[in-house]
Amino acid sequence: MKRLNLPAQLQTLSLVELEELAGEIRELILTTVAKNGGHLAPSLGTVELTLALYSVFDFSKDRLIWDVGHQAYTHKILTGRRDTFHTLRTLGGITGFPKRVESPFDSFGVGHASTSISAALGFLIASEIEKVKRKVIAVIGDGALTGGMAFEALNHAGQLKKNLLVVLNDNEMSIDKNVGALSEYLSKIRLKPQFHRAKKEFEEFVKNIPFRDLSEKILLAANSVKAGVSAAVFPGAMFEALGFTYLGPIDGHDIGGLKDVFSRVGVINAPVLIHVNTTKGKGYPPAETAPEKFHGVGKFDKATGQVIKKKSPPSYTEIFSQAVIDCAARDERIVAITAAMPTGTGLKKFAERFPHRFFDVGIAEEHAVTLAAGMAAGGLRPVVAIYSTFMQRAYDQILHDVCLQNLPVLLCLDRAGLVGEDGATHHGAFDLAYLRTIPNMNILAPKDENELRQMIFAAFTQDKPVAIRYPRGAGLGVNVEAQPSEISWGKAEVVKQSQSAEVAIFAVGTMVKACVEASRLLNDKKISADVVNVRFVKPFDTELIKQSARSAKLLVTCEEGTLNGGFGSAVAEFLADEKISTPLLRLGIKDEFIEQGTRAELLDMCGLTAEKIAQRILVRLNELIFGFLTVTT
Amino acid sequence: MKRLNLPAQLQTLSLVELEELAGEIRELILTTVAKNGGHLAPSLGTVELTLALYSVFDFSKDRLIWDVGHQAYTHKILTGRRDTFHTLRTLGGITGFPKRVESPFDSFGVGHASTSISAALGFLIASEIEKVKRKVIAVIGDGALTGGMAFEALNHAGQLKKNLLVVLNDNEMSIDKNVGALSEYLSKIRLKPQFHRAKKEFEEFVKNIPFRDLSEKILLAANSVKAGVSAAVFPGAMFEALGFTYLGPIDGHDIGGLKDVFSRVGVINAPVLIHVNTTKGKGYPPAETAPEKFHGVGKFDKATGQVIKKKSPPSYTEIFSQAVIDCAARDERIVAITAAMPTGTGLKKFAERFPHRFFDVGIAEEHAVTLAAGMAAGGLRPVVAIYSTFMQRAYDQILHDVCLQNLPVLLCLDRAGLVGEDGATHHGAFDLAYLRTIPNMNILAPKDENELRQMIFAAFTQDKPVAIRYPRGAGLGVNVEAQPSEISWGKAEVVKQSQSAEVAIFAVGTMVKACVEASRLLNDKKISADVVNVRFVKPFDTELIKQSARSAKLLVTCEEGTLNGGFGSAVAEFLADEKISTPLLRLGIKDEFIEQGTRAELLDMCGLTAEKIAQRILVRLNELIFGFLTVTT
Repeated sequence: MKRLNLPAQLQTLSLVELEELAGEIRELILTTVAKNGGHLAPSLGTVELTLALYSVFDFSKDRLIWDVGHQAYTHKILTGRRDTFHTLRTLGGITGFPKRVESPFDSFGVGHASTSISAALGFLIASEIEKVKRKVIAVIGDGALTGGMAFEALNHAGQLKKNLLVVLNDNEMSIDKNVGALSEYLSKIRLKPQFHRAKKEFEEFVKNIPFRDLSEKILLAANSVKAGVSAAVFPGAMFEALGFTYLGPIDGHDIGGLKDVFSRVGVINAPVLIHVNTTKGKGYPPAETAPEKFHGVGKFDKATGQVIKKKSPPSYTEIFSQAVIDCAARDERIVAITAAMPTGTGLKKFAERFPHRFFDVGIAEEHAVTLAAGMAAGGLRPVVAIYSTFMQRAYDQILHDVCLQNLPVLLCLDRAGLVGEDGATHHGAFDLAYLRTIPNMNILAPKDENELRQMIFAAFTQDKPVAIRYPRGAGLGVNVEAQPSEISWGKAEVVKQSQSAEVAIFAVGTMVKACVEASRLLNDKKISADVVNVRFVKPFDTELIKQSARSAKLLVTCEEGTLNGGFGSAVAEFLADEKISTPLLRLGIKDEFIEQGTRAELLDMCGLTAEKIAQRILVRLNELIFGFLTVTT
Repeated sequence: MKRLNLPAQLQTLSLVELEELAGEIRELILTTVAKNGGHLAPSLGTVELTLALYSVFDFSKDRLIWDVGHQAYTHKILTGRRDTFHTLRTLGGITGFPKRVESPFDSFGVGHASTSISAALGFLIASEIEKVKRKVIAVIGDGALTGGMAFEALNHAGQLKKNLLVVLNDNEMSIDKNVGALSEYLSKIRLKPQFHRAKKEFEEFVKNIPFRDLSEKILLAANSVKAGVSAAVFPGAMFEALGFTYLGPIDGHDIGGLKDVFSRVGVINAPVLIHVNTTKGKGYPPAETAPEKFHGVGKFDKATGQVIKKKSPPSYTEIFSQAVIDCAARDERIVAITAAMPTGTGLKKFAERFPHRFFDVGIAEEHAVTLAAGMAAGGLRPVVAIYSTFMQRAYDQILHDVCLQNLPVLLCLDRAGLVGEDGATHHGAFDLAYLRTIPNMNILAPKDENELRQMIFAAFTQDKPVAIRYPRGAGLGVNVEAQPSEISWGKAEVVKQSQSAEVAIFAVGTMVKACVEASRLLNDKKISADVVNVRFVKPFDTELIKQSARSAKLLVTCEEGTLNGGFGSAVAEFLADEKISTPLLRLGIKDEFIEQGTRAELLDMCGLTAEKIAQRILVRLNELIFGFLTVTT
């Protein structure tokens, strides 16, 4: 690998050298991810595929677009980032996903699924208009292919009949086992090896049987086999129907075979889909055996595959999981929906307990939410568990199908706020802002894991749309009530109150703990600050805000979310509308995208630690008292 | 038709009586739409289909879910709304789309496309869990089928293998001519009548040819025909691949044939897709000839088909259309994208002028935006024209693919604000709020059609994401500059200024004119109010706001958009952050969904007329001066 400085050099390597290189790359990925955490299994699955692509195409000219980007570590290593690869997913280090500012070889930034074919088509059209001849290739997994926008792009590409190349990286997995009829269809193709021959030889055959000569009988026979076996007879008929030339399936770990096919597709003047079978976690037995565990993984022991876990309180995800099960045990109208994340969202246990009331729809957030709306209209009480950042995909469905009809759908947004190492594409920074604009929506954020349980129980008693957002990772370690105490709908909780506080801090969810600590720090400086756990971002407790505005010198809002349009924004609106002139200090995430780092590093960067919150309050208070002089503390 | 009170009665009618009824319904639809405007062509196309469905199924128990709902007038007439049908699309009258609060037969409200299969699947699951036996039927057009979420739902339904019935209403049209590979595929099926026989007879045939007996030769023969003709050999193979039993195509105007098929599908214990061919505008020659003109139409003369047009200035749509063409003539990097709306968005002229730089992607807003991001990353300057309400579908793509990468994509949001008769599902009330939360986004709103042209010219000079939102309908009739004067990026325009105004009104887009009038009305009461044309909702002109806040007693924001999170919200945030205590009055749309009516009626309802704006300002001023006493004016 030492010799390798530019990807172009790959084209000079022999097959044996490429296979040797594959081993070295695999080792580098394994060592790095064991140390930093990351998307191991998907990236181990595409080592040979990536090498084959780079040894056939010239990506200084051609364009390679990855979907999601979980599988792009080899691509990163091959394009000038071998020496910095050890900084993967760390603050200031190289990112876990392709990113345009990081390398000219990262043609298009990714993180969310199903975007690659759209983007690739965009590049292809741009090349044609600018009269540059280049090959544009999208690599998309069978998981990402379940996302509707991938279908929208196939439908468009098939009509345009341009020279697009789509590589379908079929490992039969999304993050968990892939689901859906399309996935079953791909499996059928996999399972009929007798028909897995290159299309070429069929095409030879065709020449000798002009269509007009086919007897009615043969046509009928052809038609007759379609039920159940058409996938085998016509591997890829589904893609051919969409105007693609289908080739495959091809062994995705056979560099020679891949190179052979890639070298020959150039002659086909139409969109081509090459179906490649890969094994997630390839070459690392623990990951091959448990690819879902090693999809995105924290630090682990390379030798044993044991994930290194710090002892920590149950995660918010675990509490969500148990709470929904407990509610569902008492109310059989409760059903649960996930978009390809039974493990990540914690619904796997629900699925085991209530298999007929659990629905994994694949990477299909839009369908997930409207399915839930249909269920709710039909009398059920669906809960939809989708990460905050991915729920963005269903903004219109939440608005148009759930809230406009005021249907009792419970949205549970895990990974709200800053998620850490996954970086800018994954932070759940916008949910409060985009949900708050929607009429009829109710938005809750728990201060700890017990309150999450309380909120889930409370939400199921409400006959309206509710969203609960909670952070990634461990809870605070508080006692979790089996039978949760009731919370009063729309009411905030005063967490810390004194007789005549100068400051009233309204903290959302995760920020309650930090604000309580900030209040203590302020107390050390003889400043009395009350802390309110907001609980309800919508409808929020306007009475309590009015009351605090009357008594305090300064109101503070603090949230792990964007300041633009978030909870602090709602309070600013309210104060203006109610003609309240009490000063307001809004703390949260500025109007910019936040990069990767640990959650702690990022919270600090955003000024959302107890120390920085206290400091900001102190400065503002001093301004209020002494005018615009800032004091050092 | 007089006898008909309940849809159940349809089951007793003879075929001749049903056909007679079809004629009467068609007449009622025609007469009403000629008077009120509405979705004529789609609804004329489904008269027989709806009658056949109602005469076979019992929708007091079974469930019928329409997609989009443009085609549901017959359904409305048959379910107790015959006598009120003349109030169609008027304030307080019956709505143009199925709506749950309007009738128990409107199982699921619609307006946006591609939701029906998801919702129907939700109802089916609900029925199973509640142990109610019922048939659930989704009727979806070939246009709506291009939306990705329809594919997501098919993929899920195919795996669940439940008894869902999807009726594909194929009229080869979206609003304009349908596009995409799937559409071509459906056309191929249409064009091979020799294979259009019911599947049943094939199945008989199959029994006699067990799969194992098929010779390799026949299989190869079968395979050989796939290129180009597989759609004919295997009509619906694409749907079969997704786990559906495909039946069709069937003549959608043959009530007897439809009834026959509908009666027999009950025996198939699997998801079924029935492909029905209909003619948009059926039975009314002017609409059959020009279905896109009569898709959604204003008042027209029934006898001649002449649309009754009031003489009015060019529409914003027309100005947009010409401006983009003029820019594209000078910069060949400019390309244009629409999602199935070349006519509605005004891009049809662009398509004629620059056919290779125009892309209609079908009803596929997500793909449209990410395609544009890919094009921009590839060096082009794409403009994406999508109505404000439909752009909601692409919220995540705007955030994750365009803005996170800071790509120069121009989003043009027509029909922003209140759209009038289409009602709650179609108002573009949320765009300022949902776009404003996204970092790197620039948001503009023109006060008149000339400024729209200025903004389009200006946007193409910027190397960043820009959204321009403008209303439905005619411009103000101002002079439109061929070579637009430049506008200063991020700067507002002072429209009306006096020496020492008590009030400074910051008006967004359409509201500038109303606010100038309001200012005149206030002047009559000896109150001086400056008016600022905001122009840039993001980044907005903070300097001017600061300046006005210093000089005026009251700041006012006025926008045709939701108050929650909109421009007024941004100003409230800014004032709080800048410690400015000047009172702020925010005028806009309250946190609720607005129903149908004329634009004038709705603006009045929302308090956004000059009179009501003046009145609100006056009341607030009096409160400021005299405390909380309200005065009558």
